[in-house]
Amino acid sequence: MPTTALPALDPQTLQVLAFDIFGTIVDWHGSIVREMQQRYPQVDGDAFALAWRAGYAPAMARVMSGAQPWTLIDDLHRQILDAILPDFGLAHLGDAERAQLNLVWHRLAAWPDVVAGLTRLKHKYILCTLSNGNLNLLTRLSKQAALPLDCILSAETFQAYKPDPRTYGGVARVFDVAPAQVLLVATHHDDLASARACGLRTAYIERPLELGAKHPKDVQPHPANDLHARDLLVLADLLGC
Amino acid sequence: MPTTALPALDPQTLQVLAFDIFGTIVDWHGSIVREMQQRYPQVDGDAFALAWRAGYAPAMARVMSGAQPWTLIDDLHRQILDAILPDFGLAHLGDAERAQLNLVWHRLAAWPDVVAGLTRLKHKYILCTLSNGNLNLLTRLSKQAALPLDCILSAETFQAYKPDPRTYGGVARVFDVAPAQVLLVATHHDDLASARACGLRTAYIERPLELGAKHPKDVQPHPANDLHARDLLVLADLLGC
Repeated sequence: MPTTALPALDPQTLQVLAFDIFGTIVDWHGSIVREMQQRYPQVDGDAFALAWRAGYAPAMARVMSGAQPWTLIDDLHRQILDAILPDFGLAHLGDAERAQLNLVWHRLAAWPDVVAGLTRLKHKYILCTLSNGNLNLLTRLSKQAALPLDCILSAETFQAYKPDPRTYGGVARVFDVAPAQVLLVATHHDDLASARACGLRTAYIERPLELGAKHPKDVQPHPANDLHARDLLVLADLLGC
Repeated sequence: MPTTALPALDPQTLQVLAFDIFGTIVDWHGSIVREMQQRYPQVDGDAFALAWRAGYAPAMARVMSGAQPWTLIDDLHRQILDAILPDFGLAHLGDAERAQLNLVWHRLAAWPDVVAGLTRLKHKYILCTLSNGNLNLLTRLSKQAALPLDCILSAETFQAYKPDPRTYGGVARVFDVAPAQVLLVATHHDDLASARACGLRTAYIERPLELGAKHPKDVQPHPANDLHARDLLVLADLLGC
């Protein structure tokens, strides 16, 4: 089946940049490893971070299938945490310690290029999040990382998790623009493919160390994306910001 | 009936400041008058601004009563605009001109103390909007006025207009805090009273010229409010920011 080539992206046609957060903007793996080293140095932080994150997609799938009612990511993260703690010798942690640890997702560190890149992009575009994180998580995360965003949009806004089309289409509807005036910026090809299916334009950001230095990611360009950038500074270059 | 005195507000108990926007943060009357002077100098801009704003509460009441389905403020503003144009000799305006004029609500100017006041308050608190404006309006307004907010919350977020309790209670629920950890900041006593009924703390901001220099507002303190401030710089003083 022949693929239809998209016309080259004209940066002037875009109005809104919607950013995936976990992996794209913040280093969840490194942040969790560092927090575990401080709190529970006996635990393999790399394996712990990967196990916690591995529960994420299945948990959201249970919600979207209707097997579990609408649940915020903060609560899904806690359910996954409770499930994996025994595997890491931490079954004895009390409720307060679990609650504190769960909030590591509100304290994730941004990749080093992010603040400078967003600052350049903000002069030309509306910058929003489009993340499965809940509004509370995304707001506190953005505040502590000093992200210069214009608006926090979340799965919570649309009561649906990515890759549900209500999320991608919802960004265009909120800002009263055509889907092709929205660029989804993400480090995950499946997220970008789902956005394209809704008519959005897409930019891939490499983040080769998203899964940690032991698990380098394949960051080869995918021709279906409109843009491919090593980081947000290169994205700003590509968009003429 | 005796009133119950609230304990004095301890600024340390607050986590979130939620700001009303029209009148409190931006000068809708002055901005509309200036835009009308530029576009249609033959029109009485003061009367025009007041007529447009006068349609606002009844339009939201129609939505909340169920007489009209859920409608964004951008669309309610347009309906009111269409209704008042003939009264001001502007019945001849075409659709594109009406659409452009309607977007004046995205371009309202902030009061002179706002950016400096928010900047101080932001160091200590989560700053969000709680406005009946839709997300698109609030985002574009905040961006052009360079408001250093952490999150845009809107009637659209909660699918209910103030003074519906879902809006005030919704802010506390979104940020996972008690209602008393949220301070509503507004220049309208009825908005503040509705917030108090939901357990929020309240701060009144004077804005004596909200309705224009010809119609000075009574800005006397109301004892039910926790705080009373001339502007956001005084609010920052009162909160120790």
